[in-house]
Order: sequence, then C-alpha cells, then structure tokens
Amino acid sequence: MSKYDIGIIGGGQLGKMLIEEGLRYNVSFATLDAELNSPASYISYHHIQGSLYDTASLQQLAAISNVLTYEIEFTDAHYLEQLQQQGHIIIPAPQILKIIQNKALQKQFYTQHHIPTAQFVLVNKPHDWLAALQQSGFTQFAAKLCQGGYDGKGVALMHISDVVNGAIPFDEPCVLEQLVQCSKELSIIVARNAAGHVQCYPAVEMAFDPIANLVTYLQCPADISESIAEQAKQIATQVIERLNGIGIFAVELFVNEQGQVLVNEIAPRPHNSGHHTIEGNYTSQYEQLVRILLNKPLGDTGIVQPSAMVNILGGQGFTGAYKLKHEKELLQIAGVYIHLYHKAESKPNRKLGHITILAPDVASLHTKAKAVMQLTQIVPA
Amino acid sequence: MSKYDIGIIGGGQLGKMLIEEGLRYNVSFATLDAELNSPASYISYHHIQGSLYDTASLQQLAAISNVLTYEIEFTDAHYLEQLQQQGHIIIPAPQILKIIQNKALQKQFYTQHHIPTAQFVLVNKPHDWLAALQQSGFTQFAAKLCQGGYDGKGVALMHISDVVNGAIPFDEPCVLEQLVQCSKELSIIVARNAAGHVQCYPAVEMAFDPIANLVTYLQCPADISESIAEQAKQIATQVIERLNGIGIFAVELFVNEQGQVLVNEIAPRPHNSGHHTIEGNYTSQYEQLVRILLNKPLGDTGIVQPSAMVNILGGQGFTGAYKLKHEKELLQIAGVYIHLYHKAESKPNRKLGHITILAPDVASLHTKAKAVMQLTQIVPA
Repeated sequence: MSKYDIGIIGGGQLGKMLIEEGLRYNVSFATLDAELNSPASYISYHHIQGSLYDTASLQQLAAISNVLTYEIEFTDAHYLEQLQQQGHIIIPAPQILKIIQNKALQKQFYTQHHIPTAQFVLVNKPHDWLAALQQSGFTQFAAKLCQGGYDGKGVALMHISDVVNGAIPFDEPCVLEQLVQCSKELSIIVARNAAGHVQCYPAVEMAFDPIANLVTYLQCPADISESIAEQAKQIATQVIERLNGIGIFAVELFVNEQGQVLVNEIAPRPHNSGHHTIEGNYTSQYEQLVRILLNKPLGDTGIVQPSAMVNILGGQGFTGAYKLKHEKELLQIAGVYIHLYHKAESKPNRKLGHITILAPDVASLHTKAKAVMQLTQIVPA
Repeated sequence: MSKYDIGIIGGGQLGKMLIEEGLRYNVSFATLDAELNSPASYISYHHIQGSLYDTASLQQLAAISNVLTYEIEFTDAHYLEQLQQQGHIIIPAPQILKIIQNKALQKQFYTQHHIPTAQFVLVNKPHDWLAALQQSGFTQFAAKLCQGGYDGKGVALMHISDVVNGAIPFDEPCVLEQLVQCSKELSIIVARNAAGHVQCYPAVEMAFDPIANLVTYLQCPADISESIAEQAKQIATQVIERLNGIGIFAVELFVNEQGQVLVNEIAPRPHNSGHHTIEGNYTSQYEQLVRILLNKPLGDTGIVQPSAMVNILGGQGFTGAYKLKHEKELLQIAGVYIHLYHKAESKPNRKLGHITILAPDVASLHTKAKAVMQLTQIVPA
C-alpha cells in the first residue's frame, strides 16, 4: 500500500492550513478527527473519523502515514509513545507532548533548565492553596489547571483575598503563578529540524487597546528594542533546544516591567500567533512544518512586509449559520487576507477564521489593522 | 442537491492553483478532465473523468456547479453556448471563447475595434500563401494555424523565400502576421467583473538571455517607461472592455522598436504570465477569478515585492519519474517558492511546475532569479 506523506492527529483549522501550505509540494495528507466534517477533513486525501484518544484510530492513522504530527495537544501521548516504539515517526516527539500537556511538568522543566519563567507553586487540592500562597508570598496570581485548560479555560486571575474568602475555582491540581507586571506579551515561533538547525520567526506582539485593555490584534514585527528582541530569541531557542524539540513550537513570552523576558508557555504545533506568516513571511509556519516533517531544509523566516492578524470570532448571542457582516468592504482593502475555517456554525467566541493584514510600513499597518478590526463582525447569515 | 460553488472545465495546473487559492474562502470545486488523475483532481471536491468535448460530461459538470469556468481553451464553445441558453452561468462567456479559439476571428476583432496589432492576412489553403504575402508586402512573418495551436505548436517563424521554395508547414487556414521587430514582450493580466469594474495587474516582462536570445524568466514589474506602461494598460483594458469580457484575461503585448504597443493575443483564463501573482501581488490572478466567479469585489493588484517566475520544464532525453536536482539548494534561498503540478511523469519540455522568486528590490531579484535558473533542473528520480 502506498502511504500518505503526512498524517495529522486533529482536523481543525491548524490542520487545514498545514494542508493548504503543503499543496504546492504535492504533499498528501491523512487526518483524524472526532468530527466527520472538520476544517481539515474537506481537503485531506483521507479522513478517519475517531476520537483523538481512541488507540485504534491512532493506530489506523499511523499505519497509513509516513510521519505523524498533531495539530492539538489533546491526544493520548502515552499511546503515541507506544506507536513511536513500534517504529512510527512522530514529530514533535510524544515525550515533549507529555511535558507540555501538564503545566506542572512544563514549569518544572523551565526551572530545571534555568529558563526564566514567572515564579510558581504547585497545589494538589483546594485545601493546599492558602498555605502555598502565603509561603511563596504571592498576592496577585494566575491559577492554572495542570491539565486540560485551553483558550482561556482553566485559567483564573486571582488575588489571595479570593482564597481567604474561599473562592477557589478549581478542584484539580494547579499551578499558581505569581502575576507578572507585564509591559509586553510576545510570541516567537521556533522551527527546529532533525539535524538540530533552528530558525526563529521575528517576535510577534499582542497589541492592546489602551482604553479597553484588551488584546486586539497581533503585530509583526513587535515594537521592542533590539536587545529585548535578541533576549527573546535566545530564550525561545534555548527552551526548544533543551526540550530537544523537532517541529514547530510557539513560545509565548512576557516582558516584565524591568525589561526581563520570561517564558509563559509553549505549544508544540503551529499556533494562532503564527497565522500571519502565511502572507507576512517568506516561509509560513505551516510550510516550515511540512519541510521538517519531510526532512527538507528549513526555509527563511524573514519578513516580506509588516503584518497584523485579527481573529474572526463568533458573535455574541447566537449559534448557527453566519457571515462576515462587512466582507465586501474588507475585500476591497489592499493586503487583507480573509481565512475562513469551514466551520458549519458560529458560537459565541468560536474561532471561525482570521484576517491577515499586510502593509509596506508599520504606521500604515496600524491604520489598516484598526480599520479591519472595526469591520470584522460575525452576524447570522 | 447542494451544488459545488465552482465547476472547472479542465483539470490542469491552472485549475489546481485556482482551487488552492479558493481554499481559504472555503470554496468547493468540481472538475472535469479526460484524465482521472490530473493536477486539479487531487484537490477538487468532485472530479468527473471525461473529454472536454463530451457534451454529456459538460452537462454533468454544469448540473452540479453554481458557475462554470474553463482553465483551457480546448473545449466545445458551441455546446457551452447551449448550456448558457439553458440558464447555466459560464464565465468568461462562450461567445468570447469562440473568438479566442480562432486566431482569424481574434485578429479581425482587433481590427474592427481599432486595437493596435501586427498586420496580418488570412489564408485558407497553401495555394493562397504566396499571393497573399506579395500583396501585403510581408517578407518576414509568423504563420499561425487559426485553430488548435498552443504552447508554440501551430506557429512558425518564416521568410517569404520559404514559401517561394514551397516549404509551407500548415494545410489548414492560417493567419500570416508581419513580424514585429520587438523591443519587449509584455503581458498584462486583466480582471473584469460583472459590474464592469476593471483591475489590471502591473505589466510582466519576458526577460531574455541576451546571449542565447531565449526567454529565461518573467519579471514583474517590467523594466519599461511609465508612458509604455500606461499605454499597455490602456490597450489591455480597452480590448477586454470591447470584448465585454468577464473573468481573468492575459493580454500578451509586443512593444515594437518605435515604442508602439501592439496586442499579440489573449487568453481567457489565468495564465503562465500571472503565476507570480500568488506571492508577488496582494491578490493573485487565481483569487481574483474566484472573486469574480462568486461575485465578490475585485482585489487590489498591487505589488507586495518585485517578483520573477521560472518554469520547471521536463528535462531533455527522458520520460518518467522525476525530481528537482537541486531542490535542497533552492529551498534554502529566501523568497523562493516551488510549485509542483502533481504530474505523474516528466516528458521533454513538459510544464511540471514553476518557481516564484521574491526580492525587496529589482537588482537583488535579478541576481536571485539567475541563481534559481541555474539550479532549476529536472532529472530522473
């Protein structure tokens, strides 16, 4: 039987874009997802419907694929290790996935390898929180479930007085992390291949609306000094090298008010903060992963034009068929790229797509990004 | 039955790239091609295997598609007219295809509409050639079969003495066209939508190797004066407006030694001379056609970075499985985009793919394009 070049565990939008960026190399993809009609399944050569925790489905995907990767962390890392032992190639390695799946292991890894990160303490049960916080001296902190959190779920920003008042949001083991007074939030996409070659993408900055104090869009390049940029790149490279990571990794970073760069967390896959690389950089994060999976040389990560990225999120108060209210206006702006993820229905805050914005310079990028943000609105179809 | 958004007559590389550029809008495509495994068939949602002249297959594609387009001129334009009369939407209109399929009608159209073009005379049989040439006063000329020529086939560059000596290459009706002493060959991709809005892409120049006198690569922007650029744009717009053309058209132009712009010929579809727009321009020719077919506004055709395009052609002297000899080296150059067309085997001069090259300025583009050309070589796999 001739196999598919790449098998993707997960059939979401990250898988969809991975396939899109592999097409000009004629790469064939197989996918596995619990849904029959998932964003990637429409364009994969072969789709298996099955849970990402179902070992029979994972085995089936491995059997028909030359190499496996995953576009989501929520799969059975232990079983992937078994598949690896049977000779299947899995990139990034399941051992890395196991660390990343558990925020306690992730934080301990940083500490063991002298990677700067926010101070933290581990707690098993609600009963342990107060003593742990008092001992560490944290007053403001982020409580994060060790396992299973995503997209803001499983995370709470808290004050020690909440704990004193008995308002503990999670029963399961948690990382309690001292709140970083943060001047910038950055992300660096790191590509590392089997030969140990590393290419970092220029840092991306989460742009905040100073009035609403909300993340509004991602911008590349980040508005940071050369020395911060260099520090961020070194730390991002270091953490992936220490992990002996092969693949694409998003390293999320804080820059604190003292100008120190701290690792927040890592994703072992293409990431929301790298969507803009499709149009904004010579080699996209997705193409880069295809290259790594097929053992081709890494591509240049340089900037073609400054870029920004705005998420297209499901509108409040409705579920069902949807449309971009101002699609016509958006399509008439130069350097605006609408990406829709082929999701059947909208739900509040569901990621339905994103928009990349290119501009020849950063000043006009800001103007254009703000105009695009105002026009980006999902309404019932 | 829910229909596919777009039906493509032809399953070649132009269809493949049309589909690739429609994916981020979640556009569904159906294709028709004589081959079961054609470049576009791998990624179309539904593929019909059938001749492009088989009315039953064309009818079947029309029945399952909201709108039809063609990625090759060699199909049954008369039957497409019938489908149009039955209410199917076909873009560009079959009436335009009929004109373009016949070089005599094409040349007469230019003359009737005062579009500057090389002087010509029509001949039906070999017996007519000498008198026609003597009457027109042509000594050097291009003989072109009225119907069926493509990719250099059906065209001969000749001298009247060849005819005197009885060396007439074609028996069928021909256009004999006075040879233009040409200083540049340009191409302009013109997009025109149902509302009559027009967007021209910046002119592309065929770059010649001054030693071998061969077209080596395409370059955008063309190295021409503003006044030539303006003239070329006006003529290209004029001819598509006179045709009342809706769709994407490549208008190939000569600039003669007097600096006059002449129309050479038109293709009613995305074109080889527009491949570079995928990376080099804000909106690619393929995305632009998707927009036109779905009645969305035209996209901006501005340049992101100067670009060049090199064809990947089958190597001489072999047929069969193939590879790019220097793929590794090519993949390590920033701004080099390899596009492979998923063709099963190489044949001499077969178009197997192309490479787009981006660079921040024209000088470094030239250097990079020359390096890429030297590295672009197809060898047996």
